[in-house]
Amino acid sequence: MSAAWLDAIRWTADGLVPVIAQQAESGKVLMFAWMSREALALTVQEGYAVYWSRSRNKLWRKGEQSGHRQKILEIWFDCDEDVLLIKIEQQGGIACHTGRESCFYRKLVNTEWQIMAPVLKDPKIIYKKHE
Amino acid sequence: MSAAWLDAIRWTADGLVPVIAQQAESGKVLMFAWMSREALALTVQEGYAVYWSRSRNKLWRKGEQSGHRQKILEIWFDCDEDVLLIKIEQQGGIACHTGRESCFYRKLVNTEWQIMAPVLKDPKIIYKKHE
Repeated sequence: MSAAWLDAIRWTADGLVPVIAQQAESGKVLMFAWMSREALALTVQEGYAVYWSRSRNKLWRKGEQSGHRQKILEIWFDCDEDVLLIKIEQQGGIACHTGRESCFYRKLVNTEWQIMAPVLKDPKIIYKKHE
Repeated sequence: MSAAWLDAIRWTADGLVPVIAQQAESGKVLMFAWMSREALALTVQEGYAVYWSRSRNKLWRKGEQSGHRQKILEIWFDCDEDVLLIKIEQQGGIACHTGRESCFYRKLVNTEWQIMAPVLKDPKIIYKKHE
């Protein structure tokens, strides 16, 4: 896909850009992931977040297994042209693979990472029903 | 600095961790930067954000020139243990070096990045007065 808005992005040496996913309505930061050029183009085309999985080394349509898709409302770009912020609607209210609303569920309290948010749905149930 | 909470972080090969800075009160995402182990330890110790500048290759006390320091209210950690989310109070109401509130001031509108937020203060003034 050839497009000036994609060319404007300063991709990493691996051809990726970091992406912050924020729940549009609440303002909660739900997750952080990476997109390739193709992933970003597909995200815009399909209207739902498509990431690049660095662990699996392939396109990752968020929610393809869990159903927890992220509907794209807005895409923002930073001053250095190397980070994206997407404002989304989180389907199912769960972004994290642990079954929590947000991936940021641990808080530093007196030099310890304390778990502050409950598991809303058992990951075994989230991922099993789509096998 | 030896500490279990620092050891828990999966640092990049360069010894860094990505950090999302969010304005605590408004929920606005203001910027994205990196911290080294030392930068994070100093952030906690001093109570204000200290980043690692990858372009200048040195510790960067945010606001050291501009006065736009970021007071740390909370530090959150993600499920993969490789990203931090800090909730801050942005002094001066400006996080971006362009003089805008947030670094994320461009929005994708019909395949174009459109500037959506005003410059609150001329960068020449922001940075000159501290020279």
